[in-house]
Amino acid sequence: MKSFPSHATIREVGLRDGLQSIQTILPTERKCEWIRRAYAAGQREMEVGSFVPARLMPQLADTAEVVAFAKTLPGLEVSVLVPNLKGAERAFEVGADALLVPLSASHAHSLANLRRTPDEVIAEVARIRAARDACGAHTRIEVGISTAFGCTIQGDVPHSEVLRCVQAVLDAGVDQVGLADTVGYAGPGDVRDLFEKARRVAGERLACAHFHDTRGLALANAYAALETGIVRFDASLGGIGGCPHAPGASGNASTEDLAFMLEEMGIDTGVDIAGLLALRAELAGWLPNEALHGSVARAGLPKTFVARSGLVGMAERA
Amino acid sequence: MKSFPSHATIREVGLRDGLQSIQTILPTERKCEWIRRAYAAGQREMEVGSFVPARLMPQLADTAEVVAFAKTLPGLEVSVLVPNLKGAERAFEVGADALLVPLSASHAHSLANLRRTPDEVIAEVARIRAARDACGAHTRIEVGISTAFGCTIQGDVPHSEVLRCVQAVLDAGVDQVGLADTVGYAGPGDVRDLFEKARRVAGERLACAHFHDTRGLALANAYAALETGIVRFDASLGGIGGCPHAPGASGNASTEDLAFMLEEMGIDTGVDIAGLLALRAELAGWLPNEALHGSVARAGLPKTFVARSGLVGMAERA
Repeated sequence: MKSFPSHATIREVGLRDGLQSIQTILPTERKCEWIRRAYAAGQREMEVGSFVPARLMPQLADTAEVVAFAKTLPGLEVSVLVPNLKGAERAFEVGADALLVPLSASHAHSLANLRRTPDEVIAEVARIRAARDACGAHTRIEVGISTAFGCTIQGDVPHSEVLRCVQAVLDAGVDQVGLADTVGYAGPGDVRDLFEKARRVAGERLACAHFHDTRGLALANAYAALETGIVRFDASLGGIGGCPHAPGASGNASTEDLAFMLEEMGIDTGVDIAGLLALRAELAGWLPNEALHGSVARAGLPKTFVARSGLVGMAERA
Repeated sequence: MKSFPSHATIREVGLRDGLQSIQTILPTERKCEWIRRAYAAGQREMEVGSFVPARLMPQLADTAEVVAFAKTLPGLEVSVLVPNLKGAERAFEVGADALLVPLSASHAHSLANLRRTPDEVIAEVARIRAARDACGAHTRIEVGISTAFGCTIQGDVPHSEVLRCVQAVLDAGVDQVGLADTVGYAGPGDVRDLFEKARRVAGERLACAHFHDTRGLALANAYAALETGIVRFDASLGGIGGCPHAPGASGNASTEDLAFMLEEMGIDTGVDIAGLLALRAELAGWLPNEALHGSVARAGLPKTFVARSGLVGMAERA
């Protein structure tokens, strides 16, 4: 069987996908503290907010300030989610390193989430690319194909439609594309199958996997995606997150559990899990009314893992 | 990449590994009801108890009666756990279809759990085989190599020691051998590696994988084992279970989540997940003081899965 890659990257999306789906509005200074400590724990890609109207998503109204802080940390790739050209223009203005445009392969989800059809979003992506060319910004453009593995509203989402979207956004000039199981429907068989197909369409531009743990399969799905050559994953500290238009979708893959799985496999994530667990404990205090997810925080790290990693005081009690 | 098998078997171990690790003693008639309904939901292998002294494990003191009931169900393979020859003789007497002897590859865990060294257990396995030959019983003899992926007491368990145990029990005449992550330390990389090595030693006699979800990796590990050719898994309804000598080991792979993953992959388990979920709800009522685990019961089945399976009324609310 294929050997595993030597490195993988976990993009922290808790500050966007996580915070947008919970009630508590985290103050800007807390967000900056989260970023600072996640950076100290080795994370080098973070989606820190979203340029959407503040009345729609007050949790993320401070995205420009958060980006400004994040950009002070050397080597951190700071990305934001944008639903449209207007948001992209703000991302260019604030100098985000990357922007992510969500494109629902499910027609029904696209209408519910963005009030646009997939083809209208694809046309917007082309305008975003043209705007970047016009203004000379260096912001990388990435599209996340959401509901790629099915949709709570529409039901089945044919692979052919997902692959059509992948090809269309590549044609529209995006730098990278990823597949997202927005509603937690995917299993590892489907993940392997669709990522392999998408790889044949997008080659090296297929660059991210985004899973939710709704049915306990986020890590199995990440493993399956890894086997197809994916080395970049979205995840959220404490597994917070979901989608307001996808009932039951709560729970992104948890950063600390994913990091544990990858590191246990000998794949370097650059992440200090002990540091992440300490930050997660802090986050639990900041969000007293929100349920955090994840298993490693509850069970502790295996004694064997701690011994290999040189960590001290992090193992479960034997 | 390898294609997936067309069929897989989930052996229900909740009646043994589950019930032995919780406080509540389930009455015999409830156990029989569990077996009857799991059978009705398509399960055809169940570990229904253990022949250990009743004073050590009062939860399983009625194993002989439970076996007698289970044997009335046509085509059900009824297995019991036995720690020694005395237990095996009882398994032969009651006509169990299979017996499972746990053999800790961790010397320290073996002493804590069975008060014997691994080599003493291997010698006992040879005596069990000789006793079967002598009495003409048809009980299949299986050894589960526990702590195969590490031990909360000892820490590392070298692969070489696990493989030595595998070879030794094959030499002692067992019919099948499996690998168990008793304490929830395994990740999918290690699972793939060790199952591949064990396959080279045991060939088709390597026949079972037993995972705990302590660190959220039971399903990823099952997927990795599946890729090495394993098509038989232990699991426990509602994920109940653990090991009294393995702190933090609570939570077997949950039967319903594993069945969902396998069925989602197009692998026929013979299991009616809707039936299992109904039984799980009943079990929750029988064990009001115990935490049940598992994600599918909480989130519901995906709309897409329900549509493909012809199930009615089981999907999440959209």
